Amino acid sequence: MSEKIYVGVDIGGTAIKVGICNQSGELLHTYEGPTETSKGTDAIINNIAAYSRHIVDESPFAWEQVEGVGIGIAGFLDIPNGIVAFSGNLSLRNVPLKSILEEKLGKTVKINNDANVAALGEAWAGAGKGVGHCVMYTLGTGVGGGIIIDGKIVEGYASKAGELGHIQIVPDLEAIQCGCGKMGCLETVSSATGIIRMANDAVARGDRTTLSLVDNIMAKDVVDAAKAGDEVAIRIVNRAAYYLGKSLSVVSVILNPQRFIIGGGVSKAGEYLFEQIREAFVKLTPDPSQEGVEIVPATLGNNAGIVGAAGLIIRG
Amino acid sequence: MSEKIYVGVDIGGTAIKVGICNQSGELLHTYEGPTETSKGTDAIINNIAAYSRHIVDESPFAWEQVEGVGIGIAGFLDIPNGIVAFSGNLSLRNVPLKSILEEKLGKTVKINNDANVAALGEAWAGAGKGVGHCVMYTLGTGVGGGIIIDGKIVEGYASKAGELGHIQIVPDLEAIQCGCGKMGCLETVSSATGIIRMANDAVARGDRTTLSLVDNIMAKDVVDAAKAGDEVAIRIVNRAAYYLGKSLSVVSVILNPQRFIIGGGVSKAGEYLFEQIREAFVKLTPDPSQEGVEIVPATLGNNAGIVGAAGLIIRG
Repeated sequence: MSEKIYVGVDIGGTAIKVGICNQSGELLHTYEGPTETSKGTDAIINNIAAYSRHIVDESPFAWEQVEGVGIGIAGFLDIPNGIVAFSGNLSLRNVPLKSILEEKLGKTVKINNDANVAALGEAWAGAGKGVGHCVMYTLGTGVGGGIIIDGKIVEGYASKAGELGHIQIVPDLEAIQCGCGKMGCLETVSSATGIIRMANDAVARGDRTTLSLVDNIMAKDVVDAAKAGDEVAIRIVNRAAYYLGKSLSVVSVILNPQRFIIGGGVSKAGEYLFEQIREAFVKLTPDPSQEGVEIVPATLGNNAGIVGAAGLIIRG
Repeated sequence: MSEKIYVGVDIGGTAIKVGICNQSGELLHTYEGPTETSKGTDAIINNIAAYSRHIVDESPFAWEQVEGVGIGIAGFLDIPNGIVAFSGNLSLRNVPLKSILEEKLGKTVKINNDANVAALGEAWAGAGKGVGHCVMYTLGTGVGGGIIIDGKIVEGYASKAGELGHIQIVPDLEAIQCGCGKMGCLETVSSATGIIRMANDAVARGDRTTLSLVDNIMAKDVVDAAKAGDEVAIRIVNRAAYYLGKSLSVVSVILNPQRFIIGGGVSKAGEYLFEQIREAFVKLTPDPSQEGVEIVPATLGNNAGIVGAAGLIIRG
């Protein structure tokens, strides 16, 4: 029983998910408990520590086998120093999470942001396994991103690399303001929120679409309507796919990754969406920069976060 | 005399420049000889080897002190294997330059593309000295780019990273075709060629500008006219600066570098140009991604290539 194991923690606003991975990134055990955000900073940190110990206790592994604990968290971080500068959904501010947990657990702790960690998870053990240069997009409420070069997360000088949702890709004439305050970010069109907004706009404008019969339109409704031949929905999904493909093109000339991995709720639209993304990418990207580049769906789903968090200990 | 030295070679279509650097990237000696491109592949390679030996012979250093020879070259390369897949201006095709020169010289040889090498030179010993994360743009006939993360060149999976001139940044409605075959690349507006084209277009259109009095307009003429208050020239320079600043914004959200370094002939327009680039960058970039980011002129000039080539031996 001398195998090394790696604990990964994915901290969300309502639940903390914990997992144990082996050296190959296989997820061997998972556990989930409440974050208890409303109880404040100390409670959250105590829960992270408690769940990390608990999952090892209930596994066949010994605490001594734990090489370290990696943590994925949404917010602004100082990654090298392991400090959460600000996390809105957890109400954390200037919390030296790494050092507090290292003291509580007696293990190496590394933190990184949730989108970076998901990218590392996919690169380590998912859709990017064996590929050194991957870029991952997570299409959810927003558009998250993570960049892996030579198997490691690109953090940037101030821990702010990989903000792919804020690539300004929509031309001024059709751009709307993003939550970040700037105009035309990818997130305004290729996130679930963006797709829903375009659908609501179309309905409000009186466009002839089956979506006008749907209460509380979700991104999946738009995709389903598009697949069923609704012209308005087709245009919306195509726009989301086109600008995503265009942003892949921009990232390709800058970084020349081998594989783009697309995950998150919107990516469940499947090949219907991926074909349109690839079409835009192929059309817009200079030939040398698209040679051999693959655009594939993520494979780890919600587990990418815990796997990638565990991976921080090996590759962080 | 046991100091280690590093030989850098910058291969151009007409001249091969060679330099000796010490471990800090100080350029101690330079030498230049003809490339003799017309004499073919063997002659070019023999010249590289001869000039590399010659510069050491005429220096106070001994050949034994040479740690390696780094080479910057324009073209498509297989960087890890040191192969020149294709270099148009040198008429080279599938030349295993690294292995041939390692045999001829008995030293480690590394190759990389000219724009990457210039970026490494600036990062090592120029405008990016001491800064781990830099991105360099070279505004010349085209727009070249090089990305330095943690002090090292980002090569990409197929040696094609850093093609910043081909970021598609000009909206479709005003985009023209780039030499790469795609529409709206940065190079079409922010290179010397782009500036000259916009000026010639304005003159041909009959715009009222002092540039209509200039035979064979150069980029410097346009900058000078703008500085002198010519409205048409002002608009052209502003457009070149705006799209460059917008591309910096895109690179910032993706990579979060600490410093952008702008070199090449067009950058000689100086603060007049830099102020406009910074204005666009500040306007377009989300706050967290612009915090602490600097936009500065290159300092090594034409020597960036030989310094960076020498740097490949330490940082390649």
